[in-house]
Amino acid sequence: MQHLLSMNDLTKQEIMNLIDTAQAIESGEHILPMERTFASNIFLEPSTRTKNSFYIAEKRLGMEVLDMNGVDSSVTKGETLEDTLKTLQAIGVKLAVVRQPEVGVLQQAAHEVSSLSIINAGDGTGEHPTQSLLDLYTISKEFSSFEGLRVAIAGDIKHSRVARSNACALEKLGAHVCFVAPEAWRDESISINYISMDEACEQVDVLMLLRIQHERHIISDNQGDYLQEFGLTIERERCMKDEAVILHPAPVNRGVEIDSSLVESEKSRIFQQMSNGVLMRMAIIQTLLKGELQYEY
Amino acid sequence: MQHLLSMNDLTKQEIMNLIDTAQAIESGEHILPMERTFASNIFLEPSTRTKNSFYIAEKRLGMEVLDMNGVDSSVTKGETLEDTLKTLQAIGVKLAVVRQPEVGVLQQAAHEVSSLSIINAGDGTGEHPTQSLLDLYTISKEFSSFEGLRVAIAGDIKHSRVARSNACALEKLGAHVCFVAPEAWRDESISINYISMDEACEQVDVLMLLRIQHERHIISDNQGDYLQEFGLTIERERCMKDEAVILHPAPVNRGVEIDSSLVESEKSRIFQQMSNGVLMRMAIIQTLLKGELQYEY
Amino acid sequence: MQHLLSMNDLTKQEIMNLIDTAQAIESGEHILPMERTFASNIFLEPSTRTKNSFYIAEKRLGMEVLDMNGVDSSVTKGETLEDTLKTLQAIGVKLAVVRQPEVGVLQQAAHEVSSLSIINAGDGTGEHPTQSLLDLYTISKEFSSFEGLRVAIAGDIKHSRVARSNACALEKLGAHVCFVAPEAWRDESISINYISMDEACEQVDVLMLLRIQHERHIISDNQGDYLQEFGLTIERERCMKDEAVILHPAPVNRGVEIDSSLVESEKSRIFQQMSNGVLMRMAIIQTLLKGELQYEY
Repeated sequence: MQHLLSMNDLTKQEIMNLIDTAQAIESGEHILPMERTFASNIFLEPSTRTKNSFYIAEKRLGMEVLDMNGVDSSVTKGETLEDTLKTLQAIGVKLAVVRQPEVGVLQQAAHEVSSLSIINAGDGTGEHPTQSLLDLYTISKEFSSFEGLRVAIAGDIKHSRVARSNACALEKLGAHVCFVAPEAWRDESISINYISMDEACEQVDVLMLLRIQHERHIISDNQGDYLQEFGLTIERERCMKDEAVILHPAPVNRGVEIDSSLVESEKSRIFQQMSNGVLMRMAIIQTLLKGELQYEY
Repeated sequence: MQHLLSMNDLTKQEIMNLIDTAQAIESGEHILPMERTFASNIFLEPSTRTKNSFYIAEKRLGMEVLDMNGVDSSVTKGETLEDTLKTLQAIGVKLAVVRQPEVGVLQQAAHEVSSLSIINAGDGTGEHPTQSLLDLYTISKEFSSFEGLRVAIAGDIKHSRVARSNACALEKLGAHVCFVAPEAWRDESISINYISMDEACEQVDVLMLLRIQHERHIISDNQGDYLQEFGLTIERERCMKDEAVILHPAPVNRGVEIDSSLVESEKSRIFQQMSNGVLMRMAIIQTLLKGELQYEY
Repeated sequence: MQHLLSMNDLTKQEIMNLIDTAQAIESGEHILPMERTFASNIFLEPSTRTKNSFYIAEKRLGMEVLDMNGVDSSVTKGETLEDTLKTLQAIGVKLAVVRQPEVGVLQQAAHEVSSLSIINAGDGTGEHPTQSLLDLYTISKEFSSFEGLRVAIAGDIKHSRVARSNACALEKLGAHVCFVAPEAWRDESISINYISMDEACEQVDVLMLLRIQHERHIISDNQGDYLQEFGLTIERERCMKDEAVILHPAPVNRGVEIDSSLVESEKSRIFQQMSNGVLMRMAIIQTLLKGELQYEY
């Protein structure tokens, strides 16, 4: 595995191996860092959270990090992303973590590099596979198996880059997935059932809330209504199963997708997801750069 | 001591301990760095100088540094500073150095984090305690004791975040403090005497000049007049005591607060303050993260 | 040698020593890194490529890097570059790599610092000596000697910061240099012959293409004409000598200076130049900081 561009590229076994690797790192497996191995984080769209998570993962693996963002990137000099990646390869960079707005661009660039691994950190409304994998890792820590697990994904399904790839991966692993979304935000191209938020809260083991993307489309002023109709209110949370958990990719819009008081409630795994994100990204990088890194057991 | 938010929180003993620790580091105490301990520098207002000083202090202590500035911060995604800090804590960051414009915000956030230390690197017109402490460290290297020392602070007292906390700390340590300021820039809420610049130059052991903040208020075009009335001219410098020293937090407005030729004169400790700033910040971080760092003597 | 500001400052012997040092690093000379030695990269004009190359060179030498760019630099607080450099010196920085728009400014600042080395990473339309040196290193790897080598430099000679210093250095080393340029982009102040692109391709051992600087002047819409008249077309490339090589500082404007298909052709050393850039910059830094770094042979 040279690149991680889409959840669709991963087999069930590869997903389970990544989860196992993250688990091994979390349980204290000693990593002998490969010194002077360079990663480059290229974020042409803003994302402090994902960028920071990758940065910490890379640094905990002992890597050096070249930080590139949209503002000062050579992409502004009219250079294509493909040439930027080839340049990074030429100066010795081994890993490129890329967030950029166009679907398909990374797949094309991936064919042009031989000694560089590329990780898709979000491509517009396309995919965000490391977010999916950290969600799966978080779920794996709560339940003995994905088989038969009931999961609801609630929010702007249509514009989410996590909803579809998560649904797809979860079903591949044996879980039952349903969606919750206002009419306008449904994606009819996927054969997943839509249920109401009330039904979801009563039925599921895992409730995955999506972030309302202020950046991507305008929300009407009555955000309170979204919470009442589609968000996780205190009343709904009380109807959830005892062992059920709440996930959210963060940053949370408190009072929109979820009542503010529930963000750090007993069922919430929102902050644990962030910790798990670092571990899963370490596992992914470790897997992609197998030849570059050495481990001590 | 988990956080450093205000000079008021520090006892006389704690200040002296920090000065001793900075002194120990300067005299070559061997530091065994704690690898893979993460600091995050969050500067929502511009400050190259303070940011660089912290960066070097952190790196000399062996830490990894997550750089966050206003432009690409998740704060722009509508997330509160409090949630940003909790996120950093979740991904394993141990120290947050924060410059932001609102007084009181950090105090509130500090209650919400358990495994993260926060340093106030300037909160609007509030405080900037690490600047105060590096000033105190610089003074401590020149005089055997703070007891009875005469100090004048000159400039825009009203809008300065260093003037009040420095005055307060110096009096706590036994020094006598007076202010020099144009009528409009006086702060009548503090019971400190105002004297003229001529009197100050003749009387004091330490002359602390403040920077005229172009960013915070408009200066009349006749800057030369400020120098003549309230700045340190060549003539005034000649009237200073032999052993007296000049301090300035920098960057200096040459020809405004001080005659350009005096910036690197014999009495000036302006560039030494910068070197001392790194040492004092190392001492502060070392003190806050006591449990995280290990030392070899 | 404390600073590297201009190719004119270097003797033939010093250039050859830098090439030998780069060669030694490339052939695997073990570097024992000096820990906690700080470099500062100050780019007041955008340049991802050069900045990244320096960053990797510095990190491969074991240095810590303080990143400063135009946006958040204290230069925006009205501080002069000279004071910024003195500040960096005061906080313990040993190397400043500076790109800024004014010719002569660095020469002046260089007199004011004693324990800081300065590298000119491009000063407006002045010089860019590390680019020249990496070009020379690339040429040295292809030919047994510079003596008698025929080199053409093609493009916007007048506004290029590499053309003149490269021409000068190549002649110093014994090569024969000629220029190719449209009338408007010629620099009549240097006594170098101008020939046509057809002549150049037939005659030279090294064809150095310059980048058309979209940033510096407006290009007419008919870029295709530039390629036909002054660029490297497929037809012209076929007329080149067997052992001849193509250089370009990159980023390439594909289809303007060079036909896109030739960028990675057999004669092209464009991506190798990038790899060589890291090695040459390591050699330069190592030479300037001789006292600071230790080597193990």
